[in-house]
Amino acid sequence: MERVKTGIKGLDEMLHGGFLSQSANLVEGAPGTGKTTFGMQFIHTGITQFDEPGLIITFEEFSQQYYHDAAAFGWDFEKLEKEGKLKVIMTSPEVSRLDLESVGGMIETHTAKMGARRVLIDSITHFERLTQDPVELRALEYSFINGLKREGLTSLLTRESSALLGEASEADSGIAFMTDTYVLLRYVEIESTIRKALLVLKVRGSDHDKDIRQFEITDHGIEVQSKFEGREGIMSGNPRRMADSFVEAFVKR
Amino acid sequence: MERVKTGIKGLDEMLHGGFLSQSANLVEGAPGTGKTTFGMQFIHTGITQFDEPGLIITFEEFSQQYYHDAAAFGWDFEKLEKEGKLKVIMTSPEVSRLDLESVGGMIETHTAKMGARRVLIDSITHFERLTQDPVELRALEYSFINGLKREGLTSLLTRESSALLGEASEADSGIAFMTDTYVLLRYVEIESTIRKALLVLKVRGSDHDKDIRQFEITDHGIEVQSKFEGREGIMSGNPRRMADSFVEAFVKR
Amino acid sequence: MERVKTGIKGLDEMLHGGFLSQSANLVEGAPGTGKTTFGMQFIHTGITQFDEPGLIITFEEFSQQYYHDAAAFGWDFEKLEKEGKLKVIMTSPEVSRLDLESVGGMIETHTAKMGARRVLIDSITHFERLTQDPVELRALEYSFINGLKREGLTSLLTRESSALLGEASEADSGIAFMTDTYVLLRYVEIESTIRKALLVLKVRGSDHDKDIRQFEITDHGIEVQSKFEGREGIMSGNPRRMADSFVEAFVKR
Amino acid sequence: MERVKTGIKGLDEMLHGGFLSQSANLVEGAPGTGKTTFGMQFIHTGITQFDEPGLIITFEEFSQQYYHDAAAFGWDFEKLEKEGKLKVIMTSPEVSRLDLESVGGMIETHTAKMGARRVLIDSITHFERLTQDPVELRALEYSFINGLKREGLTSLLTRESSALLGEASEADSGIAFMTDTYVLLRYVEIESTIRKALLVLKVRGSDHDKDIRQFEITDHGIEVQSKFEGREGIMSGNPRRMADSFVEAFVKR
Amino acid sequence: MERVKTGIKGLDEMLHGGFLSQSANLVEGAPGTGKTTFGMQFIHTGITQFDEPGLIITFEEFSQQYYHDAAAFGWDFEKLEKEGKLKVIMTSPEVSRLDLESVGGMIETHTAKMGARRVLIDSITHFERLTQDPVELRALEYSFINGLKREGLTSLLTRESSALLGEASEADSGIAFMTDTYVLLRYVEIESTIRKALLVLKVRGSDHDKDIRQFEITDHGIEVQSKFEGREGIMSGNPRRMADSFVEAFVKR
Amino acid sequence: MERVKTGIKGLDEMLHGGFLSQSANLVEGAPGTGKTTFGMQFIHTGITQFDEPGLIITFEEFSQQYYHDAAAFGWDFEKLEKEGKLKVIMTSPEVSRLDLESVGGMIETHTAKMGARRVLIDSITHFERLTQDPVELRALEYSFINGLKREGLTSLLTRESSALLGEASEADSGIAFMTDTYVLLRYVEIESTIRKALLVLKVRGSDHDKDIRQFEITDHGIEVQSKFEGREGIMSGNPRRMADSFVEAFVKR
Repeated sequence: MERVKTGIKGLDEMLHGGFLSQSANLVEGAPGTGKTTFGMQFIHTGITQFDEPGLIITFEEFSQQYYHDAAAFGWDFEKLEKEGKLKVIMTSPEVSRLDLESVGGMIETHTAKMGARRVLIDSITHFERLTQDPVELRALEYSFINGLKREGLTSLLTRESSALLGEASEADSGIAFMTDTYVLLRYVEIESTIRKALLVLKVRGSDHDKDIRQFEITDHGIEVQSKFEGREGIMSGNPRRMADSFVEAFVKR
Repeated sequence: MERVKTGIKGLDEMLHGGFLSQSANLVEGAPGTGKTTFGMQFIHTGITQFDEPGLIITFEEFSQQYYHDAAAFGWDFEKLEKEGKLKVIMTSPEVSRLDLESVGGMIETHTAKMGARRVLIDSITHFERLTQDPVELRALEYSFINGLKREGLTSLLTRESSALLGEASEADSGIAFMTDTYVLLRYVEIESTIRKALLVLKVRGSDHDKDIRQFEITDHGIEVQSKFEGREGIMSGNPRRMADSFVEAFVKR
Repeated sequence: MERVKTGIKGLDEMLHGGFLSQSANLVEGAPGTGKTTFGMQFIHTGITQFDEPGLIITFEEFSQQYYHDAAAFGWDFEKLEKEGKLKVIMTSPEVSRLDLESVGGMIETHTAKMGARRVLIDSITHFERLTQDPVELRALEYSFINGLKREGLTSLLTRESSALLGEASEADSGIAFMTDTYVLLRYVEIESTIRKALLVLKVRGSDHDKDIRQFEITDHGIEVQSKFEGREGIMSGNPRRMADSFVEAFVKR
Repeated sequence: MERVKTGIKGLDEMLHGGFLSQSANLVEGAPGTGKTTFGMQFIHTGITQFDEPGLIITFEEFSQQYYHDAAAFGWDFEKLEKEGKLKVIMTSPEVSRLDLESVGGMIETHTAKMGARRVLIDSITHFERLTQDPVELRALEYSFINGLKREGLTSLLTRESSALLGEASEADSGIAFMTDTYVLLRYVEIESTIRKALLVLKVRGSDHDKDIRQFEITDHGIEVQSKFEGREGIMSGNPRRMADSFVEAFVKR
Repeated sequence: MERVKTGIKGLDEMLHGGFLSQSANLVEGAPGTGKTTFGMQFIHTGITQFDEPGLIITFEEFSQQYYHDAAAFGWDFEKLEKEGKLKVIMTSPEVSRLDLESVGGMIETHTAKMGARRVLIDSITHFERLTQDPVELRALEYSFINGLKREGLTSLLTRESSALLGEASEADSGIAFMTDTYVLLRYVEIESTIRKALLVLKVRGSDHDKDIRQFEITDHGIEVQSKFEGREGIMSGNPRRMADSFVEAFVKR
Repeated sequence: MERVKTGIKGLDEMLHGGFLSQSANLVEGAPGTGKTTFGMQFIHTGITQFDEPGLIITFEEFSQQYYHDAAAFGWDFEKLEKEGKLKVIMTSPEVSRLDLESVGGMIETHTAKMGARRVLIDSITHFERLTQDPVELRALEYSFINGLKREGLTSLLTRESSALLGEASEADSGIAFMTDTYVLLRYVEIESTIRKALLVLKVRGSDHDKDIRQFEITDHGIEVQSKFEGREGIMSGNPRRMADSFVEAFVKR
């Protein structure tokens, strides 16, 4: 099966090659966990390593913010946009959804003109604030996600998690049930320091690595590392040291 | 008593032979735990091993999605549908319920024409979003479940659980009180890896295996394995290592 | 004091002989814990061992479902109904309550005609869905329970608990404050297996066994066994192994 | 200071002699913990040991229920009522409150006629269901409690706690802030058995015993016993065995 | 900086001399923790030791209740009121707030006439029940607190905490953000006994002792004692014994 | 990249030099954790050490309160305001937001006139109380934060956390997703004393120290110290002592 590489060191191996082509991929995390960095790296990798132009659909931030944030990693988004390989579209959830349903809409037009293959939706959380009706929200998100697939795009959707440690209550829409991939970014407290954990919880139609791994945001983007050793309850954000070393200490004597 | 085999390795033994005939069977899990795979395997097993045609009633996904997802396991759903052994019906909860109450409805017609014996409802959760009134919801789900039984169908209902680890708050309808079987799929964190657990909590009118067992989604579908050893609190998703080995280490000396 | 035996092995001893005559007795549990089996066994025991005819008042299931479920234990409810020793009445909470308040109502008539002494209400939870007003709900349930007592019936009320492990939030009516007995059925996770626990929390006007005991649903109905050994926190559903054996191991040396 | 003895073995010592005269005393507990037994014993002790006639104001149960429940302890409430030493008044929260505010109301009349000194309010929880407005509820309860004091009565108010183990969320009225005494009855799980704990949390204007003690409901009423040994977290209902014995085992060697 | 001594043994040292002059000081606790005793001692100390007349503004209790409660500690509030050194004002939150905003209001008049320097507000919780609108509540409380400061008064505000053990959810007003001092009174379970803990969490503009200390209500008022030793999680109300002594037992051998 | 030093000892190192220029920086904490002290120190450092005039926008407190609070640290805010280097503006959330959107508004005028470079918003929490609509709130806060950036200001926003220990539920706006920096101030219970912890959770576009560090409020302002040693679960406020020393004690023997 064709794979769309994220370019994130360590992650493509976890995904057994990358995202599936034309899939919708959810990345969820608390503030500062690196969701937008993840998304920008996905887009930048596509353009610069695979000649796959990309779109960024944003419901809040301006182009300049992405230019600025990307620059910290040495990614020149302004130049890429001028070269026609990147397009940052600032819109609203409603407009973007309707746009996808009409012939010759903005997203379709840009996709066709640029030959775009990847899109970052930053963030899908903005949909969740639009309605209190879970049926409407679900339908809305479903039609949006499928509209992107119809355009031939592999999408990366960021989702804001309101809990700093542990699990946030999910919105009624159940967005994670609709996406092909579900990646969790989490804070973990270890020895009075906050580290970051990444977990691929779901890949539809493919096997994948189920380890809870540490990751860092370096000068070159996200780097996924080894899994946590000797800790229980990592996904709670507040892990316990396992008793192994203790037992071993006794047994080894 | 006649048994309807799921074809899931290890599960039919847990069920002492399979589901009961014309029963309603609930499978609940978080995103990515394998609910839909479970359901497709149940349908595929029926058609290919027992010559029992099957229906898939979906409230969201298109036929193509099932064709695609099934193909990952080597199951050719498109061919089966062309051969008249499978029918994927995309509808809404309201329509499907009313359909079952009328003579000559779509479900009745397809069941009769195909000689269908099994049905996958994917997912029953869509009913829960229809009304805030628990009396109405309960009646609605009850009449739907019984309508399927009247058609002579053994049904598999998937239910979305919004909690990733541990227990989600149940909907007011109490769907699990109405079904004959209640199977739980759960994520469990063990040594910085996420594993999957399966538990048969309830089989009406029959004994069954009560172990909490590990399972994997392989190239050939779901495979249920041995139970977890040396862990407490597995159903919380965040188990503790039991002190046994510790005690034994001391006692054995 | 006259006792009404449940016929459940081990339980009548816990109750110091059985339920009190003309009392209202609550049995609460999650799906699959065996509430309805408990109730059917109570009715079957009355008819076949003590010549006490019984009523089943159901707000959801049909007679056939009880016939079917009872048959799994070798209890022929259909025959008993034909012999006039059992009557399954399918009704609604409102109708049944009003019925009890009128002279010559259905319940009164059947009770008189059959000489009924026991009644299963399956389930009292259906009352809780009728109103959001806690004063109204309390009055409604209280008048229903007392109506049954006035008819000379010893009642068994099942109540659905929405939490699988641990404690569900109680409804505002506080039904357990109004019944004479309160029996809890609970799931308990022990060594990667789900076991069932039974606890008699309350018997008005009588002493009783306060142990948390294991029970099983066998071919012949419910059998209550010994209490759990060496575990703390059983009622949470997620017990901890106690440190005793650990200490003993050291001390014994 | 004058003390009003409850007659409950062990409790009067904890209270340094009993309740204060003309005080309002709250007893809170889950179903089956013995609130009503506590209240009946308080009334029975007054009449038979101190020649203090008593009232029972009930918002739900009939006289017969109290006669019946009291009989289990050898207390003949029916006879006491005939002798004019006890009066069971079945009323509603609204009526009883207004009654106390009017000259020559029912409570005043009975109190004067009988020379009543004690009153059981069973239960104050019925007030909490009357209004959603916390200001109104607080005022209502405050005026009721003070009305009883004005009549010269020492009152015992029972309150239903909806949580079986641990702490229930308190009603907005904050009734415990208004009463002179606050006694908690709790279930505690110890070695797979449910025991009962009693704690005097508050006595206005007097010192008192702060131990969490075990109690039992015997043939003669409530008996308060010694405190729990070697357990932490008793008030959670789910205590942990403390590590003391473990340490001692090592240290003593 | 000028300090206003509370007269509570041990507390003035924790406060590095006492409250700041003309500050607003919050004392929060569950029923029976001693909030009102704290407040009365603050007022009594002012009058009898520092010749600072005091006001008590109450939204529920009558003067007589304070006379009675104070008498238990040997404080003659009735006499102090007759001597013009104490004034108990029973009013409502609305009236008291408007009063402070008008020239020549009751509080201003009494303050001027008596030369009052201290005021007890018992309790500020009554404000929280007045409105569901957090903006209005915050403004209301803020203007009330500042009105007291404008009168030159050092205020002590009691606040009811609805949780018996651990932390209650705070009201939306965030009263603790507006006061200069925040003192917490808490119940703590230690070896099957309930003890009381005091913690000064905040003093605006001054250093202070941050220990969690035990305190008792003696015949002479509140006495703050040493901190808890060898316990973790005291503020949860349900502390764990720390492993120190255990380790030491091994290491010392 | 240009850095804006906070002047807080230890923090500028954690931030790898300070805040980013023209960034929005969130500081969140419970009452008494030192949010306003943090903000005043940020402003005072700017004026006195870097000749960067500053604004304080307050939605509740008067200038005098800041003069008074700052004086405790030896910072003469009144003098700085007279010298035109500081301006305290008391306003409302609505007015301040509209002000930023109009040409020649108050904030723009003061910024221009003074050459202001820094601004303290005390507190952003007041925005959260304005509307129940999360879309409106998010837009409102976003436009306010960006308005400050457009004026060339580096902003420090304080946010009130209602939980004393552990994590408060975040407002629907998700303010922390919009700011460039997110600093948490937390209470931590250690050996019966409350200490304070500081954590920089997020810095957009820059690496930073991820340690959970102790801090104190001294006579000279905030001082950040070393991280916590030998504790797990610090961010819960209720840490556990880690088993290390225990294991080492055994192993070292």
